[in-house]
Amino acid sequence: MKSGTSLGVHSTADIGQNVSLGKGIVIGPHAIIYDNVTIGDDSAIGAQSIIYENVTIGEHSHIGPRVSIGEPTAELYSSDSYEGAPTYIGADAIIRSGSILYGGCEIGAYFHTGHYAVIRERTIVGHHVSFGTFAQSDGDCVLGNYVRLHYATHVCRTARVGNYVWIFPYTVLTNDIHPPCMLCVEGPTIEDYVVVATHSVIMPRVKIGTHALIGANSVVTKDVPRESIAIGSPAKIVGLVSSLTCDFGDRVPTPYPWPTHFVDGYPWEENGWQAEQD
Amino acid sequence: MKSGTSLGVHSTADIGQNVSLGKGIVIGPHAIIYDNVTIGDDSAIGAQSIIYENVTIGEHSHIGPRVSIGEPTAELYSSDSYEGAPTYIGADAIIRSGSILYGGCEIGAYFHTGHYAVIRERTIVGHHVSFGTFAQSDGDCVLGNYVRLHYATHVCRTARVGNYVWIFPYTVLTNDIHPPCMLCVEGPTIEDYVVVATHSVIMPRVKIGTHALIGANSVVTKDVPRESIAIGSPAKIVGLVSSLTCDFGDRVPTPYPWPTHFVDGYPWEENGWQAEQD
Amino acid sequence: MKSGTSLGVHSTADIGQNVSLGKGIVIGPHAIIYDNVTIGDDSAIGAQSIIYENVTIGEHSHIGPRVSIGEPTAELYSSDSYEGAPTYIGADAIIRSGSILYGGCEIGAYFHTGHYAVIRERTIVGHHVSFGTFAQSDGDCVLGNYVRLHYATHVCRTARVGNYVWIFPYTVLTNDIHPPCMLCVEGPTIEDYVVVATHSVIMPRVKIGTHALIGANSVVTKDVPRESIAIGSPAKIVGLVSSLTCDFGDRVPTPYPWPTHFVDGYPWEENGWQAEQD
Repeated sequence: MKSGTSLGVHSTADIGQNVSLGKGIVIGPHAIIYDNVTIGDDSAIGAQSIIYENVTIGEHSHIGPRVSIGEPTAELYSSDSYEGAPTYIGADAIIRSGSILYGGCEIGAYFHTGHYAVIRERTIVGHHVSFGTFAQSDGDCVLGNYVRLHYATHVCRTARVGNYVWIFPYTVLTNDIHPPCMLCVEGPTIEDYVVVATHSVIMPRVKIGTHALIGANSVVTKDVPRESIAIGSPAKIVGLVSSLTCDFGDRVPTPYPWPTHFVDGYPWEENGWQAEQD
Repeated sequence: MKSGTSLGVHSTADIGQNVSLGKGIVIGPHAIIYDNVTIGDDSAIGAQSIIYENVTIGEHSHIGPRVSIGEPTAELYSSDSYEGAPTYIGADAIIRSGSILYGGCEIGAYFHTGHYAVIRERTIVGHHVSFGTFAQSDGDCVLGNYVRLHYATHVCRTARVGNYVWIFPYTVLTNDIHPPCMLCVEGPTIEDYVVVATHSVIMPRVKIGTHALIGANSVVTKDVPRESIAIGSPAKIVGLVSSLTCDFGDRVPTPYPWPTHFVDGYPWEENGWQAEQD
Repeated sequence: MKSGTSLGVHSTADIGQNVSLGKGIVIGPHAIIYDNVTIGDDSAIGAQSIIYENVTIGEHSHIGPRVSIGEPTAELYSSDSYEGAPTYIGADAIIRSGSILYGGCEIGAYFHTGHYAVIRERTIVGHHVSFGTFAQSDGDCVLGNYVRLHYATHVCRTARVGNYVWIFPYTVLTNDIHPPCMLCVEGPTIEDYVVVATHSVIMPRVKIGTHALIGANSVVTKDVPRESIAIGSPAKIVGLVSSLTCDFGDRVPTPYPWPTHFVDGYPWEENGWQAEQD
């Protein structure tokens, strides 16, 4: 089986006007494509998926079944002349079934999602980023390149996430210091190479410095200096990441900075991380 | 684009017997409507949605794609004569794609959901309530008016939630003090105007008093007096909400009670909260 | 209404080659069944569901709408000759709408899921197991018989979960002691009859002994002896489960071991738990 190809271009797909389909595209049964959509060569749109108006998807992309792209924002329900904002997804995307990407998002190449990721309007995402199953962006936020959000992570509005950041399951970035408030909203800043372990909460306006590590189930209420370990609720600085050792023996004796041993799919896979940094 | 209207009444929708559709209704492609369904004027049912038997939906409602309403309970699988309980959704609902509402729910007007909210049987909900994306009700519980459940919040069976309550992402209300037990189940009571911050757990039978504030990542094991701040695991009372100040300057110098500055969509938007209280 | 039967075998279902359907099977509208699928007698496949290649489903099973079974793994996107691994689901399954089960899973009889459970490749599951709504298995893990995973629980790769285990909402099992790492991954071991309360994190390689109880919002960093109570972040041993009493009076005066009073659907329902143990 090859993604989509066993079904061919299905006659039950529902295709709007001014739709530009590249070569070798496969559209699954009961997919719906609205007006002014552009899809690059050799891409596939899964069964029952909905591509709303003004969406552009790059070449070699695999959109799974029951996906929605260009999802309308709340203005749809209050306006008689709603027009979906332009939405861009770069080449080589893999968007798994049930994921929803709102109108106005701009997503770089090699974007991957698990199932049922929900990414709201105007989320700006670099290249080689993945949203895990049930991961959420509440919109109006910026993520760098090579960011990996695991299962059910939550990125709030106005958050700024750098490059090579890992956020593990159920972690929540927050933007409202005395909820509910619409006047003082400001999300955290997560710098490059940061790792946030599972079930943590990052409070509003906090800055987590480059290469810092946040332990599981922490609540980060203050800035964390670069290369520091913070853990607890509220989180306290307990040392430097370079001091951590692994009791699994000599496989990864000093696990941080993590790019020294973790190469899978990263740009330093060929020449090493130090070469990348130089 | 206007919700649904660009598709018209689609010939591939599958419609049962004794279905009453008001004026101006739009049914998307591949929707399925079972018997004895009533839908009010100017409403839309999205593509691939399923409306089970004995469902009533008020006028001006927008049901998104792939929604299920009147979802059968577990009795379906053990009975030869299952009949779905009547289910009511008030006027002006917006139910976003993938949400599931079980049979036997009664939902007031202006009900909004994000995506993939799952609301089980016999959840009783007031008006102007919203369930965020991935928010859950386990059924047999009661929520007042103007309640806002954010992403992935969980309301347990037998919980009682008052009016104007805010519950933030990943917070869980629980009802079982020594799980698993089916004999001593009793959920918490959350009174009016309470705010529960993200990633908290509210233990069974706890009562949280009016205007109280629960900090992030707390486990509330005892009653919280009205207007108090509780935080920690287990949560301790650390002061009164009226003592909180905001370090964002003079925009919201004293943020609680929150209705004094937060008006968006609330009934005191026009005349002020004090007028509402008088 | 009886599961599926009101719709009959729907002409719009899309059925592949070498598909073996037992007697009395109901296929909903717009379902898609790929090649080499076997479905036992008296089963139902819901509307819009997708059964991928090489899937076997036992008799008397109810597969709800918009379910995916035999979901392709990531190799689909990098291989020209992807062939889905064989996938088995035992008899009497109830898989609710939106759930996704990957190729290569082996699932025992009486498997139940809520909605939107996501179960990745090569998850091996005993009989009478339930995955709640939004529950996740990241794959390559083993669960025993009569395991109950509640809403939004997360089972990591390489986890080993025994029999009669309960895991409550939002609890996460982890396998990576210094993330991200691909060299030192090893999940926890949860022995028989263990109960893990809501919002907990079980750290890698930890062993939780038979009949132990983990309190809400705990982070378990060390082994927990059998029949012990552990609570906190990091979790500390605070006593034996046999010492717990219930302040609800004489209904369940000593709630642990829980099988002494909890019988619903368990094999000791008829003759009692002691008989089962003897």
